[in-house]
Amino acid sequence: MNIKYPNGKQEFKTTLPKTKTKDLRKSHLGVSFEEAINESNAYYLSKNIAVIYKKPTPIQVTKVDYPSRNKAKISEAFYKVPSTTDYNGIYKGKYIDFEAKSCHENSFAFQRIYTHQIDHLKKIKEHGGIAFLLIEFSTKRKVFVFPIEELDRLYQESLNGGRKSITYETFVELGYEVEISYQPRVDYIKVIDQVYFKNE
Amino acid sequence: MNIKYPNGKQEFKTTLPKTKTKDLRKSHLGVSFEEAINESNAYYLSKNIAVIYKKPTPIQVTKVDYPSRNKAKISEAFYKVPSTTDYNGIYKGKYIDFEAKSCHENSFAFQRIYTHQIDHLKKIKEHGGIAFLLIEFSTKRKVFVFPIEELDRLYQESLNGGRKSITYETFVELGYEVEISYQPRVDYIKVIDQVYFKNE
Repeated sequence: MNIKYPNGKQEFKTTLPKTKTKDLRKSHLGVSFEEAINESNAYYLSKNIAVIYKKPTPIQVTKVDYPSRNKAKISEAFYKVPSTTDYNGIYKGKYIDFEAKSCHENSFAFQRIYTHQIDHLKKIKEHGGIAFLLIEFSTKRKVFVFPIEELDRLYQESLNGGRKSITYETFVELGYEVEISYQPRVDYIKVIDQVYFKNE
Repeated sequence: MNIKYPNGKQEFKTTLPKTKTKDLRKSHLGVSFEEAINESNAYYLSKNIAVIYKKPTPIQVTKVDYPSRNKAKISEAFYKVPSTTDYNGIYKGKYIDFEAKSCHENSFAFQRIYTHQIDHLKKIKEHGGIAFLLIEFSTKRKVFVFPIEELDRLYQESLNGGRKSITYETFVELGYEVEISYQPRVDYIKVIDQVYFKNE
């Protein structure tokens, strides 16, 4: 299956003209929040605090070349829709699962997340895990942990005529702000600890 | 990074001559155990028993074509070494993590698993998760859950002059056999329940 972004548009539309081939080795498009999370996860791992990884991007490989016996080169493949979320792992014995999104605007539109990802996060919570949206407002340099129950409640409202997006102010009000620091760059585990392990 | 299999050989070596391009859409090479696990996970999900997914195969994308505005086609990519294991998820509130392997021979060679995968499984156990190897002996149609502590103990012995593989008999002795049935095809959660939740 080719990738279909939730809003029906393709990710690089503003930067790439038709039929251009892009060499991604030289590209750093929109990966900074992802990099900050990955570095934070590497920090948690190195300090033995938590074991959390980004899942690889799902890709459907359709053709592979073997230019030599011990080397496989993929020559045709397509992005697939992810079944679940970006990140999962374990912290203090608990299963952690979250989707990460970066916003340039002042609100987060529901068309940027798949319904099946919201359903997945709900299911994780039902099964006793910790599930949330980790959201960055890039121009404000603000990051929030936003619990699945709030995300789902507002999403259900949006389906019944409510707002099709969540404003920054709502994240301030109902989310939990994550400190941006030198190391780890996005210390979301500190917030998880305060919110989900407050009775320990 | 190109994929390097633990034994220094490439996976399809017996079936593919040099420089051949393989159309993987028509291929079902060695995926049957994986398919059986994936189907079992789909069953667990549909019955709301557990939420466990296979992680996508990690691929380094180096070139992408855009033949039309809403379609991205990957034209050059390489397999990467997986950071962690094949499967993870949640069962009864517990984090579950395992690597799955299928054996045609009568023993499982340690060169078929990466040291960092063994280390990852150890770390999961340390953090309170359930970590194991799920192994199939395909000609015998036998499947076992093999706890990380046994796997690691035998691996450490192999580094100190011991056997470089684990025999089928050792899996029978120290592992937990998984029933092969119609649905789910590989009911490993039943074994997890008996082994890790026996006091509940």
